[in-house]
Amino acid sequence: MVGTVRLAVIPGDGIGPEVVGEALKALAAVTDGSEVSFQQTEFSLGAARYLETGDVMSDDDLAAIAGHDAILLGAVGGAPGDPRLLGANIERGLLLKLRFELDHYVNLRPTVLYPGVTSPLAAPGDVDFLLVREGTEGPYVGNGGAIRVGTPHEVANEVSVNTGYGVERVVRYAFAAASARPRKRLTLVHKTNVLVFAGSLWKRTVDAVAVEFPDITVDYLHVDAATIFLVTDPARFDVIVTDNLFGDILTDLAGAISGGIGLAASGNINPDGRFPSMFEPVHGSAPDIAGKGIADPTAAILSVALLLEHLGLTEQAQRVTRAVAADIAERGDAKRSTSEVGDAVVARLGA
Amino acid sequence: MVGTVRLAVIPGDGIGPEVVGEALKALAAVTDGSEVSFQQTEFSLGAARYLETGDVMSDDDLAAIAGHDAILLGAVGGAPGDPRLLGANIERGLLLKLRFELDHYVNLRPTVLYPGVTSPLAAPGDVDFLLVREGTEGPYVGNGGAIRVGTPHEVANEVSVNTGYGVERVVRYAFAAASARPRKRLTLVHKTNVLVFAGSLWKRTVDAVAVEFPDITVDYLHVDAATIFLVTDPARFDVIVTDNLFGDILTDLAGAISGGIGLAASGNINPDGRFPSMFEPVHGSAPDIAGKGIADPTAAILSVALLLEHLGLTEQAQRVTRAVAADIAERGDAKRSTSEVGDAVVARLGA
Ligand SMILES: CC(C)[C@H](C(=O)O)[C@@H](O)C(=O)O
Ligand SMILES: CC(C)[C@H](C(=O)O)[C@@H](O)C(=O)O
Repeated sequence: MVGTVRLAVIPGDGIGPEVVGEALKALAAVTDGSEVSFQQTEFSLGAARYLETGDVMSDDDLAAIAGHDAILLGAVGGAPGDPRLLGANIERGLLLKLRFELDHYVNLRPTVLYPGVTSPLAAPGDVDFLLVREGTEGPYVGNGGAIRVGTPHEVANEVSVNTGYGVERVVRYAFAAASARPRKRLTLVHKTNVLVFAGSLWKRTVDAVAVEFPDITVDYLHVDAATIFLVTDPARFDVIVTDNLFGDILTDLAGAISGGIGLAASGNINPDGRFPSMFEPVHGSAPDIAGKGIADPTAAILSVALLLEHLGLTEQAQRVTRAVAADIAERGDAKRSTSEVGDAVVARLGA
Repeated sequence: MVGTVRLAVIPGDGIGPEVVGEALKALAAVTDGSEVSFQQTEFSLGAARYLETGDVMSDDDLAAIAGHDAILLGAVGGAPGDPRLLGANIERGLLLKLRFELDHYVNLRPTVLYPGVTSPLAAPGDVDFLLVREGTEGPYVGNGGAIRVGTPHEVANEVSVNTGYGVERVVRYAFAAASARPRKRLTLVHKTNVLVFAGSLWKRTVDAVAVEFPDITVDYLHVDAATIFLVTDPARFDVIVTDNLFGDILTDLAGAISGGIGLAASGNINPDGRFPSMFEPVHGSAPDIAGKGIADPTAAILSVALLLEHLGLTEQAQRVTRAVAADIAERGDAKRSTSEVGDAVVARLGA
């Protein structure tokens, strides 16, 4: 790839700007002297911006972001319980709005236990799987409501919406991803015995697409059972495909068993390329440690690797991943500042 | 308590009858010579019965079961993928039907890491918490539907229904349970940032009831974050209160970190006493190991302890729990047959 990539950068709140700073240093280092250059536009969005202006993200912001080739996001969200944020839902109004409006129907969350990382599991084995989480449907659609709020007769509903169109496209993506991996295994996770309508749609879709991928071994787990295997035998997983909410839950657990969400990167992908895809660490804004310069920027740097991979800059992506892996292997357990980690990775990229 | 307890026994499928057999041996041993006697009625329900008769549970079965003082259930469900079961949903038609019809609004799932049990966690700490799962609402209500099934235009919805009435009663139960425990801590788990209507109802209810329990320390975790703490610091939990689906997911994970769901007992409680409460191991029917006499009956035996406790037979309940704990401490990691474990516990109860 030769040319200019227009990159929208949303540092966000809390530790977001700190980790994004290091991620951008790594991006600069790995693309330095190459034929691709990144032209960055920074968007000041998040709780801080809401507190200043009273709006979370305007249509103009959204249109401006959509005009870019890709997005790098740090983390958004204010301090939990901050009374000034009660009226706003930064997650829904910003993060989920971007995912939905930019049709990020694949939420890609690789889980790798890097050598040198301490897992809370006594015997994790060889953990290396890809979780493909649906990003635009399920209980995340915001299709709920309540009546008689605040009375004993209150009824609050949440609707999980699942469509043939929406499920098939993410399932196809997951099969293709499994095809490209050596183990060629795909596990559908759902709760078909209880959520019978949505579960049946997911199950039938996987069964139908499986016919076109005869070399992929397919299995199924209920979401409750999947959490068991994630702690007793995570090495059994290769590619997992699941809905938006189950994917949210399982990827935090996956992050935990592979050394913490300080290492977990993610991509919100629009595979059609109609909209820019967005790359972000799985962790949140962590207001409790913000401003101290101690947040681990590794997940943000690995998100840059996913961004490069998505743009077809595979060699650069691999260099970032290798630099991070080498850094973790050598110093992963040491207490280091945010910039120390970033500098160490950059030093390896320069070498 | 003096008198006769009418106990409905539903051994069910797979390993269900095997583990229930041992649980009943323990029940007989601990009540032998006491002033309470158990009069048992066995109900042949489950996949096997469905395959014979074509119905899962009739209204007459339900009425007959409801006429008892308590229920002991083994496990129900046929082999996954058995084509003869495609038309039936044993879980919905039997297990969930019992929970809903008998208004089991508290699904009680204690998690204890017994000394001698190997956890998959490297450093689990002192794990001893009670998960209070709502049992009659949420995405379990069966309030979904689908249109254009099997076409690319299929839409499959699942509705999570939450009511002020339903949430308040289980939250009150959880606060009372926390009051009776030394640490006096309660953690609400939900996903308030995404499921804003249901989440708001749960959050407001906990905040309101908390005012009446000033000695209880209350905190809140998103469900995704809760899975992280369950593997990095499970000792932080005392009482967890959560909805039906999150409770389902978290209790399997809780079972896994405390040595496997072979040890996890549960009670489906109707605290009003209008209907009989039902006690069952958290595990399923495990068709793969059924008939081999190797299933661990410990969870079923511990479910008997919960049953005794519920009936006010606290001393007997404690004897069962102590016998199981002593058995696990001595032989927990040994490979033993189903009846060897049962016999060992019975021997301790006799002593
Ligand atoms: C912040 C929140 C809305 C978000 C989600 O639930 O998707 C986060 O937990 C994640 O996993 O990216
Ligand atoms: C069998 C299934 C319907 C059930 C549930 O989801 O509640 C089980 O997983 C449980 O936890 O008791």
